Amino acid sequence: MTDLIGMGQAARKACRELANLSAPAKNRLLQAIAEQLDAQAPEILAANQVDMQAAKQKGLADAMLDRLLLDSQRLQGIISDIQQVISLPDPVGVELDSQRLDNGLRLLKRRIPLGVLGVIYEARPNVTVDISVLALKTGNAAILRGGRETLNTNQALLKAIQAALSECQLDSNTIQLIQDPDRALVGQLLTMDEYVDMIIPRGGPKLQAVCREQASVPVITGGIGICHMLLDKRADLTKATELVINAKVQRPTVCNALDTLLVHQDCDTDAMLDLLKAVHGQGVSLKGCPLAVARWPQLDIATAIDGDWDTEWLGLTLGVKLVASIDAAIEHIDAHSSGHSEAIITDDLAASQQFVDQVQSAAVYVNASTRFTDGAEFGLGAEVAVSTQKLHARGPMGLEALTSYKWIGYGDYLARS
Amino acid sequence: MTDLIGMGQAARKACRELANLSAPAKNRLLQAIAEQLDAQAPEILAANQVDMQAAKQKGLADAMLDRLLLDSQRLQGIISDIQQVISLPDPVGVELDSQRLDNGLRLLKRRIPLGVLGVIYEARPNVTVDISVLALKTGNAAILRGGRETLNTNQALLKAIQAALSECQLDSNTIQLIQDPDRALVGQLLTMDEYVDMIIPRGGPKLQAVCREQASVPVITGGIGICHMLLDKRADLTKATELVINAKVQRPTVCNALDTLLVHQDCDTDAMLDLLKAVHGQGVSLKGCPLAVARWPQLDIATAIDGDWDTEWLGLTLGVKLVASIDAAIEHIDAHSSGHSEAIITDDLAASQQFVDQVQSAAVYVNASTRFTDGAEFGLGAEVAVSTQKLHARGPMGLEALTSYKWIGYGDYLARS
Repeated sequence: MTDLIGMGQAARKACRELANLSAPAKNRLLQAIAEQLDAQAPEILAANQVDMQAAKQKGLADAMLDRLLLDSQRLQGIISDIQQVISLPDPVGVELDSQRLDNGLRLLKRRIPLGVLGVIYEARPNVTVDISVLALKTGNAAILRGGRETLNTNQALLKAIQAALSECQLDSNTIQLIQDPDRALVGQLLTMDEYVDMIIPRGGPKLQAVCREQASVPVITGGIGICHMLLDKRADLTKATELVINAKVQRPTVCNALDTLLVHQDCDTDAMLDLLKAVHGQGVSLKGCPLAVARWPQLDIATAIDGDWDTEWLGLTLGVKLVASIDAAIEHIDAHSSGHSEAIITDDLAASQQFVDQVQSAAVYVNASTRFTDGAEFGLGAEVAVSTQKLHARGPMGLEALTSYKWIGYGDYLARS
Repeated sequence: MTDLIGMGQAARKACRELANLSAPAKNRLLQAIAEQLDAQAPEILAANQVDMQAAKQKGLADAMLDRLLLDSQRLQGIISDIQQVISLPDPVGVELDSQRLDNGLRLLKRRIPLGVLGVIYEARPNVTVDISVLALKTGNAAILRGGRETLNTNQALLKAIQAALSECQLDSNTIQLIQDPDRALVGQLLTMDEYVDMIIPRGGPKLQAVCREQASVPVITGGIGICHMLLDKRADLTKATELVINAKVQRPTVCNALDTLLVHQDCDTDAMLDLLKAVHGQGVSLKGCPLAVARWPQLDIATAIDGDWDTEWLGLTLGVKLVASIDAAIEHIDAHSSGHSEAIITDDLAASQQFVDQVQSAAVYVNASTRFTDGAEFGLGAEVAVSTQKLHARGPMGLEALTSYKWIGYGDYLARS
């Protein structure tokens, strides 16, 4: 039986050592991980083949198999991503604020690691390395729970990571993997307040809901994007065509892809017909509100049913809804958005301002694609996850999202008066 | 039956209106609340008398009755605190960051209100006004659940707040009070993810635990301080005496009061005797580890029992423990602290640095009293709560802790390449 409490205690111990590691020491560790992954590539790829065989025998869908696959090229990609993280500045230890207060106290606010991260994710082997590297860069220990379909791969990856830790004379328990597939362990991890500082679930709505509901450890939920684009009556629909296609088609399986196109009812019917035709021409199925279905009878728009507006399509489907006003569009977004990314396309300044002011999602765009919501695009250098909640971190989470801060007060034998 | 979902929907609607209110408009609202509280003082004080009578009949303890009491002087104190909040800068709407990215996007990060706060607190009528005022200053709606013992007082206070909202043509549902004493409603509030953005529990360990365990809405826990002070072997024990007394005695019922004094075993036995005598002379009972009991037989030190080191005394009791080293002190703090406030008293630079680096509590002091952990002392102007968790906000939470941010991206019909 897996001793999760023991793992928690070991992680707690390891994170204390890590908290004050210098930036160069942490970068040397990341470099060692990159080298170990390269050196152990044959074992890692062989382990992945075992997982792949088992998955094929289980009859997993092609999309799932593709996620599971770790071939030589992908492993090299993961290794070169480590170089990218090495090049990022270390946020830990930075003094955020420093003042001498009237009461005589010299008060600093110093950025520190969170401590121990609990990460629960699906069958994507790259996450095992990505999240370990980001955790270590910011001085955190981590307890990982990957999808059971990638257990062999994850074990091989962990072996390389722990070898690098040992090589750098660091506690190999800094990164641990829950290897037992028992689901009850996830529930236990979610309530280990004493040992775990933050839970990051990277997976679908069901995993997110389980974490929100069961966790007593603080959770960062996100990664689910029901994204909207509003074509205002003053949008340039010719130019907008490319944006809709970009948002919907460029990579339809990701969270920042477009799900619902809101169309102001005063948009030109013919120009919109051209736009929708062009989108449909990219293989996109349209699901419309009754008004949209009636307005463009030339197009094969299916009538949207209950729940469609609350669906993250993750594929080549697009909802199309006519709205009477910007207010109506914002009301629809309020009711159906997951708080991820929304865009307005307009040449009207007041319309853009209203949209930016009133839409409270993590990312709000004016005349830009929702696809920009991404750590790399935002210049964060790395992406831990995309948060759709309002506490701690919002939108693409960079390294800073893996840190906290402490207040440090200096006095000269100073009592409070 | 209380329709909590209805309250949630109403709060959601109200917070949309509030989100873009200008700073002067919000200050006018706070001014109106101050004036309504003043005008309705007779009704408020009378309502408090009803609560006080009932509490006396129920035989509540004096400390509890004192917390419950709202007399004219305290009400005026609450009103003048509102003036203080009016004078603070409005954190909402501030642009935290702004850059033009290589991809062509102009990206801003704008501070916004959290949205809807759920606040659960005990029988302290001042919290009803304090938290409403801080919520409104930052553009948030709130659903309040106060202790049942202050229901009449809270209803009277709410009436004044809602009158001010109406006077300013704002939705009176911006601040709502759960008036039904049914405890099941707390459980329901904790899981209203769709309507509530953050839960703030202000109360004892039991309330904090219930919120952590049951909530699916993000919770900020805190306010529990098992605070430590380490007297290093290089502390000036004469000067330290005042600090120990300040930390322990000045206001023993609050969370930043000292609970455990850690004493380096190389501290001078006689000087320590004088120090402990002085502390004891202030009416403080000492509970010591066996070594401390043996070292100062002249003093009436009781032997600490299991659990004493994990107790927030909230009164004139002080644990005294001898430690062999700074490492041992930090280990004790790691094991027993609630992560609130810890201090080292020393003239040794290296010792102070080790303590500051390795202790990960919200506030860490060198030669200063733990009593400084407080919003006003930290210059934050207001205090929502004191957080002891590492996500979102740590230590004294000022107005910024009631805000989130959104990313705003501007393009010129910009697609992601």
